[in-house]
Amino acid sequence: MLKITRANFLPIEKSEFPELCERKGIGHPDTVCDAVADACSRALCLYYLEKFDRVYHHNVDKAALVGGTAKPEYGGGQIIQPQYFLIVGRAINQILRECSDGTNKLEYIPIPTICIETQREVLSKIFRNLDLNKDIQFDYAVRPGSIDLTGVFDESHHSEEIPLANDTSFGVGYAPYSDVERITLEAEKLINSNKFKDKCPASGEDVKVMTERMGNEIGITVAAAMISKYINDASEYVSYTNQIKEAVLDLAADIIPERDISCQVNVADNIEKGIIYLTITGTSAEAGDDGEVGRGNRANGLITPCRTMSLEAVCGKNPINHVGKLYNVLGTEMAREIVKRGQGDIIEAHVKLLSQIGRPITDPWVNSIELIPADNVNFDSAKRIAEEVSAEKLSKEYFFDLRKRLIAGEVQVF
Amino acid sequence: MLKITRANFLPIEKSEFPELCERKGIGHPDTVCDAVADACSRALCLYYLEKFDRVYHHNVDKAALVGGTAKPEYGGGQIIQPQYFLIVGRAINQILRECSDGTNKLEYIPIPTICIETQREVLSKIFRNLDLNKDIQFDYAVRPGSIDLTGVFDESHHSEEIPLANDTSFGVGYAPYSDVERITLEAEKLINSNKFKDKCPASGEDVKVMTERMGNEIGITVAAAMISKYINDASEYVSYTNQIKEAVLDLAADIIPERDISCQVNVADNIEKGIIYLTITGTSAEAGDDGEVGRGNRANGLITPCRTMSLEAVCGKNPINHVGKLYNVLGTEMAREIVKRGQGDIIEAHVKLLSQIGRPITDPWVNSIELIPADNVNFDSAKRIAEEVSAEKLSKEYFFDLRKRLIAGEVQVF
Amino acid sequence: MLKITRANFLPIEKSEFPELCERKGIGHPDTVCDAVADACSRALCLYYLEKFDRVYHHNVDKAALVGGTAKPEYGGGQIIQPQYFLIVGRAINQILRECSDGTNKLEYIPIPTICIETQREVLSKIFRNLDLNKDIQFDYAVRPGSIDLTGVFDESHHSEEIPLANDTSFGVGYAPYSDVERITLEAEKLINSNKFKDKCPASGEDVKVMTERMGNEIGITVAAAMISKYINDASEYVSYTNQIKEAVLDLAADIIPERDISCQVNVADNIEKGIIYLTITGTSAEAGDDGEVGRGNRANGLITPCRTMSLEAVCGKNPINHVGKLYNVLGTEMAREIVKRGQGDIIEAHVKLLSQIGRPITDPWVNSIELIPADNVNFDSAKRIAEEVSAEKLSKEYFFDLRKRLIAGEVQVF
Amino acid sequence: MLKITRANFLPIEKSEFPELCERKGIGHPDTVCDAVADACSRALCLYYLEKFDRVYHHNVDKAALVGGTAKPEYGGGQIIQPQYFLIVGRAINQILRECSDGTNKLEYIPIPTICIETQREVLSKIFRNLDLNKDIQFDYAVRPGSIDLTGVFDESHHSEEIPLANDTSFGVGYAPYSDVERITLEAEKLINSNKFKDKCPASGEDVKVMTERMGNEIGITVAAAMISKYINDASEYVSYTNQIKEAVLDLAADIIPERDISCQVNVADNIEKGIIYLTITGTSAEAGDDGEVGRGNRANGLITPCRTMSLEAVCGKNPINHVGKLYNVLGTEMAREIVKRGQGDIIEAHVKLLSQIGRPITDPWVNSIELIPADNVNFDSAKRIAEEVSAEKLSKEYFFDLRKRLIAGEVQVF
Repeated sequence: MLKITRANFLPIEKSEFPELCERKGIGHPDTVCDAVADACSRALCLYYLEKFDRVYHHNVDKAALVGGTAKPEYGGGQIIQPQYFLIVGRAINQILRECSDGTNKLEYIPIPTICIETQREVLSKIFRNLDLNKDIQFDYAVRPGSIDLTGVFDESHHSEEIPLANDTSFGVGYAPYSDVERITLEAEKLINSNKFKDKCPASGEDVKVMTERMGNEIGITVAAAMISKYINDASEYVSYTNQIKEAVLDLAADIIPERDISCQVNVADNIEKGIIYLTITGTSAEAGDDGEVGRGNRANGLITPCRTMSLEAVCGKNPINHVGKLYNVLGTEMAREIVKRGQGDIIEAHVKLLSQIGRPITDPWVNSIELIPADNVNFDSAKRIAEEVSAEKLSKEYFFDLRKRLIAGEVQVF
Repeated sequence: MLKITRANFLPIEKSEFPELCERKGIGHPDTVCDAVADACSRALCLYYLEKFDRVYHHNVDKAALVGGTAKPEYGGGQIIQPQYFLIVGRAINQILRECSDGTNKLEYIPIPTICIETQREVLSKIFRNLDLNKDIQFDYAVRPGSIDLTGVFDESHHSEEIPLANDTSFGVGYAPYSDVERITLEAEKLINSNKFKDKCPASGEDVKVMTERMGNEIGITVAAAMISKYINDASEYVSYTNQIKEAVLDLAADIIPERDISCQVNVADNIEKGIIYLTITGTSAEAGDDGEVGRGNRANGLITPCRTMSLEAVCGKNPINHVGKLYNVLGTEMAREIVKRGQGDIIEAHVKLLSQIGRPITDPWVNSIELIPADNVNFDSAKRIAEEVSAEKLSKEYFFDLRKRLIAGEVQVF
Repeated sequence: MLKITRANFLPIEKSEFPELCERKGIGHPDTVCDAVADACSRALCLYYLEKFDRVYHHNVDKAALVGGTAKPEYGGGQIIQPQYFLIVGRAINQILRECSDGTNKLEYIPIPTICIETQREVLSKIFRNLDLNKDIQFDYAVRPGSIDLTGVFDESHHSEEIPLANDTSFGVGYAPYSDVERITLEAEKLINSNKFKDKCPASGEDVKVMTERMGNEIGITVAAAMISKYINDASEYVSYTNQIKEAVLDLAADIIPERDISCQVNVADNIEKGIIYLTITGTSAEAGDDGEVGRGNRANGLITPCRTMSLEAVCGKNPINHVGKLYNVLGTEMAREIVKRGQGDIIEAHVKLLSQIGRPITDPWVNSIELIPADNVNFDSAKRIAEEVSAEKLSKEYFFDLRKRLIAGEVQVF
Repeated sequence: MLKITRANFLPIEKSEFPELCERKGIGHPDTVCDAVADACSRALCLYYLEKFDRVYHHNVDKAALVGGTAKPEYGGGQIIQPQYFLIVGRAINQILRECSDGTNKLEYIPIPTICIETQREVLSKIFRNLDLNKDIQFDYAVRPGSIDLTGVFDESHHSEEIPLANDTSFGVGYAPYSDVERITLEAEKLINSNKFKDKCPASGEDVKVMTERMGNEIGITVAAAMISKYINDASEYVSYTNQIKEAVLDLAADIIPERDISCQVNVADNIEKGIIYLTITGTSAEAGDDGEVGRGNRANGLITPCRTMSLEAVCGKNPINHVGKLYNVLGTEMAREIVKRGQGDIIEAHVKLLSQIGRPITDPWVNSIELIPADNVNFDSAKRIAEEVSAEKLSKEYFFDLRKRLIAGEVQVF
């Protein structure tokens, strides 16, 4: 059921309630969980495809990152107890294959090995100062799924047919990013870029950016785990956090120049009392914080309480028929394409997709698109663009392509 | 900053997009995680209060419920591998006390024992057919927090002073429940009531209710784990799931009589192929599913994608200064009180609260209330009610009372 | 190769080196590991037999009992952190069965459930004051064996044929018990008898008895975990440990009346300094000690450094072809039977059995029997008795009967 | 009590019972546990010494090495599930220190980090083909000891005083090695030497050598885990195992030339059936076997059922006052020195040492030395040598030196 309507709300840039937006950076415990969970799903897909030429049922969308215990000090410090990463889920771990001679043979999928290797690989890419051999332990609790669910999955995966939705679920997307959202996203990317780290190695990867806007005033609050071995005293600490602040302000001046910007870094610090955000490894998980999958950024990289959000965790879900994953990504891609094709005529596009268990994923039960056309733009022409995009994206070809891109890790999911 | 405005959107009962609502029942893996996490926080509070006359820093808002492996069959079946429950978090585990003779003495808080006992107790209250001695394992990974965070917490907990917000965070609440929300909430409660279980012991506690409304048509989809030992064949299975369906339809006829209702139970079943939702223990976690904290119901008991929602997990957070918990509960209680005092004059109230780290919790940085007055009702009179309620709820007395009620487990948080 | 010789050493009662003997009581961490490991093997045997009418390969002869943390006090105290029991081993966990319709079906053996239930059951029988719901956690790491070993096992288990030895291994047995050994064994049994516990509930099950003899002087040292809730002060503590001492002395006066006996209980105590052996649960594993399989009593219930001992852990090994188990039990039973039939003519019998991998278990590679005939007894008549007994015990019938008794738990193995 | 006697048994080389001896090589699961446990104790000692200038109480003499699941194939294969190593024990993990300003400060000892680093380091030194990042997981369960035991330990460690025995315990040693023992020990060392591995990389580190002697015939049985990636087919497999056999035979011809030697490698192999001892990593723990501390070699590197053996695990125990460790090493060093000083006059020396809890370790309760003088040698002169050596070794200086050597890892303990 496609339904395209004119939005009955104001564009976000004009909304009255203070706009609020947050990004948990790539080193935040929740984001680390998301990254590992999704990488595990991708690694499983690749293994299944390589060995069996198809993907088997799996769902590794849960994890626990248990923070460690640490005693950072200027110039160094000590990890007392390592972090512990547990990936949790379901995956088909053996296949009963008929051999050419008529006998049956069990083939084993090395789920534990795949998970552990993936955890390590993902963390090695995220962190520059985490010793994977002693600062963290890797563990897995990925068990074979129920016969029941496996059956349902199988029916929709055998062939080149359109998969059936695994659940009744809700996905959502919108475009474009607001100024607040852009600066939130880009500020984190900047701080975690190699370029910035080269200049400011004392800045860790666990960066949380929270931005709020009231009228034209935008306040950016950065919580940045600083790395002790590069910092010898309080004045160096202050100097490095200031470097972060300056970089963010420069970025904002560049990408949202009309806004009135302020920026604070590590507001809970109390330098005199020695309360600072110092870590050995660059993440709060070394001592103060834990993580789970699905508790941080949505598929577009942000937490946006002023926008419609889905609670569905996207990461770790299989990319074949798990609508909790597919419809959130699809919604965002649809909205972006609509705005793009509008060439300025469409101010905002909001897409809500509702699946029904067992229904082909190309045929959502509800496909609701809300548009905000630009002033003086005819709604019908905007609507036609949306119809066009919707038809394209809800095709078998699109889903097969999306699947490939998801497995290749080319789609942002956190 | 208090800001009370007239909502620029329609009442939910009149909204055009299909209304959607979900409740994960008390036996759903995510809800079980929420229940245990919050019970652990309450148990810690009680222990700290009893021994030290104050609450110490803790945050046990993460968990992993790893599903087991099982082979249910009509009349019984077999648990192959138990579930595994890991509670994750931070808690002060030792206090250095000065004795009267001037010496120092370390007192230990038995965090592991408290957690394990609480897990067991909570699960024993939820499940009627889960053998806690062999169908599940209990584990803990609750470590001492960072010295840093502990310090911040301490400053705001010593005395009868108003705590300072632990974070910059966002809470939200609204009232009243829509018809869809009421039936979703009540249907789950009914199915999990002792009364219904007495009549239909074959119905397990892992019940998921998903309701959608298009115009006046409301469709209720129930996923109910059925219990194998009470079910001898397919016809009994069908008869028991029909019992659930009838009970829900009767309830709906009673509480939302004007609606056009349909109800389906276990839609993924395929009786002929033997694909049914059969379990030994009454929960999908015995074989097919896993859980985490904060991935299910919001503080008002529901997942409501059509409403503004906070991603914050409420369960397991400390009830002293964790605004992620307090402001979500507060928002809901404020909205309910406003609507109640409106005595029909206020159709809907929506409250959004934004804290700032270090600011007194009684003084949110943003306190935005949106109201939908009834037709012919003067907005200003509605606004006055909201102002009054807001002032009452943001008092020290209210927070101290809320803390007590939270510790006593008297407040709905999932 | 049977070889029966006259021993070239003195009877133990006449040996010059101080005789030394130890028994780790049923509540000692190492003994608990032995008890659980062997019970797990028995439970697996019973399950395999019930479902498949044969035993499948398994070997669960490893475990770790990680002690907890506790703070006992007169009258009570507190468990800070529970004990943790991990059973470790190998067991066939799935069988690919051909069905009557020609299809194949995988049948799962619930190894985890069997292990966890057995752990709980064994501990509930050992301890009177250990709360299995909060003082200890149960876990398992029993994995499928290598295809290789499984194959070897299978060849020798299919039928009613004589199994082939799984390894080149050494077993040993002797008879009779010396006075020192009898009192060591019986003292522990007495202290852990229901009768004694009724009189002295303050005595826990973790009892270690160490006995040494120099000439006619026998010194018995008992380390007995005392239970705090039954003991209100130091004088009660002393009174209860004295009760143990008196009971042991009475027993010794009864069963080895000619010896000059002394007995000490908890020699490391220093009452003035408050250093006493107080526990909440009756075992040192609550705080001070850990356990493993095979680190305590040999198959005859004792540690006897003055006798030839096998290092092989008997507990947890399969009773079909694991000579590390069978030959130690067999050696002891042979020696006992030889002495018994000797009717006083044979003072001591010592049996050493050496298997060779792949050789029928009824045909040990070496079967060496050393005898000490009584004075004036003809060695040849003693030898004939030994030959007779050896032939009987090395029969297929004997091994099949031994297997049954082992599975039924009727044979002492620790 | 020193007691030096003439042995009432024959020299081992003349004993009638088939001599039997076994060495579990450095890659055997039990030996790996021993190696890690002892390395952890040494690492703890070094840490304590560096930070606090004394050693604190610890005892890490338990561990579980849970074997993995693997599917080796000629040329490679796959690890399905990694091994899991759990080190178990007790160690003081925090010290309450008085600061110069009168305040107290808790200092934390990073036990978990020390254990995990040590596990990894030890395994990296043992194995050439084990990927420590994916073939094995490292874990720890080392908890603070009981206040009780800690107290006892402390009394004997404060200063330069002679420690008191921690237990009533038994240690044993003898010299020299018999021919069987020498070849057993040296064969394993040879096969695991870099030189041999360079020539025969297909040979893994999990080598078990079992040797038996009947009269002059010595049979050596080697179980050698072969490494799949270096072996492409059955003929290569046979060629490599033959290489091991030839090397052992050459060694025997060299060091025990008068003996009649035979050697078999991997006797359970059945090449036709494809049953061979193939591994990916060089250890049976990848799939078929598990390990514990104290279940393998005694302190002299061997399992010798024909000799008096202590069941005490030496590895992982603290080197300060744990007589279970000290007296086994001491016994062996005493026996060796006696034989050495005998310059051919003393054929064998056997030392048995018995401690008593609380007695100075330099003053064993029983110190029994049995000597076999050479023919025509006067027993009294042998006795004088033994007295001399005994006095030297039981000195404070000797124990302090032994402690240093143990901490430095210079003493063979497994």
